[in-house]
Amino acid sequence: MNVATAPRRRGRPPKAAMGFNETRESLVRAGLAALTEKGFSATGIDEILKAVGVPKGSFYHYFNSKEAFGAELIDRYGQYFARRLERFFADSGRTYLERLEAFTRDAEDAMARLAFSRGCLVGNLGQEMGALPESFRKQLSDVFLDWQHRTAECLRAAQVEGEIGPNHDTNELAAFFWIGWEGAVLRAKLERSGDALRTFANGFFAMIRA
Amino acid sequence: MNVATAPRRRGRPPKAAMGFNETRESLVRAGLAALTEKGFSATGIDEILKAVGVPKGSFYHYFNSKEAFGAELIDRYGQYFARRLERFFADSGRTYLERLEAFTRDAEDAMARLAFSRGCLVGNLGQEMGALPESFRKQLSDVFLDWQHRTAECLRAAQVEGEIGPNHDTNELAAFFWIGWEGAVLRAKLERSGDALRTFANGFFAMIRA
Repeated sequence: MNVATAPRRRGRPPKAAMGFNETRESLVRAGLAALTEKGFSATGIDEILKAVGVPKGSFYHYFNSKEAFGAELIDRYGQYFARRLERFFADSGRTYLERLEAFTRDAEDAMARLAFSRGCLVGNLGQEMGALPESFRKQLSDVFLDWQHRTAECLRAAQVEGEIGPNHDTNELAAFFWIGWEGAVLRAKLERSGDALRTFANGFFAMIRA
Repeated sequence: MNVATAPRRRGRPPKAAMGFNETRESLVRAGLAALTEKGFSATGIDEILKAVGVPKGSFYHYFNSKEAFGAELIDRYGQYFARRLERFFADSGRTYLERLEAFTRDAEDAMARLAFSRGCLVGNLGQEMGALPESFRKQLSDVFLDWQHRTAECLRAAQVEGEIGPNHDTNELAAFFWIGWEGAVLRAKLERSGDALRTFANGFFAMIRA
């Protein structure tokens, strides 16, 4: 998943003009960009500060620690994509299965706009867990579970409508989708191409469609 | 995928007794362990040297650079799992689809033996690509393609035997499998549990079985 389409100001005001909240918000945005691209271990606090134009050493004015900063980024990213999923799942102009399909196509478009340089923050940090604060583990798992539960509801509605055969367990399907989709985002970023996203999505929908 | 089951000496001789090749090999093994657990960015050369009992500063006696070391680890890991796949695919005591299933169960056992602390080196580094030497990109993609081609051959044989319906494109299925399987390994490591591996494998085989 990709943060490319997060609403974003054009340019930024000179730092002198930014208040505390605005600066903090800019640090969060820069952190989201860095973590979706490179993960946590390879991202330095200094580069985040530099990207926002904040003096070295003032980071702890805004966050208690790099760990607290990471935890907030996971939280913000998780919530952002939860809202994004819900927007697609509420689109009554499409069938339920088409709504999830539309989400996957939109995610591909968003990745393509940044030349597939950014992946999923939760996938990146999940992969890095061996080197991360242990407190991130449950937080990252919970984000996946949240996305998965929302997806299961959409799939359940699709099953009620007869788009998915009655033999499928929609909770298992939603888990399967998120496991595979994260693998697809990983490959798309590695290959700088949307092929893996389409291979996974097309395969998934073809296999479950009644 | 997991390197847990690589043949391994019991203990190691004191470093004074190790020749050049043996020391180099020990560095490779320690590197494989570190990269499957934590990835490339979070792994320091010093900890590899320390794990093997080699003096600081002597790394460049064995490898030209951290990049060259990484490239060798990717290569060795790719070949190791290619041989491992071939061993499963050649097991004539099982049907072709059962051979791929057996590989997934064995991979889960291997991860479980190390309490799911290690994932797939190629998946880890693929996820980290935003922070890695650009030369790794093609090398990592090629390893996935190699595993995928070997898997496609097994699936093709399964299709000939009627285990997979004739409507499936076995190349696409193999691509789908590796995209999703890497996602499953990521989740298994994050959750320290084999659930994701089984959810993906069971779902995959149920969906394609004729």
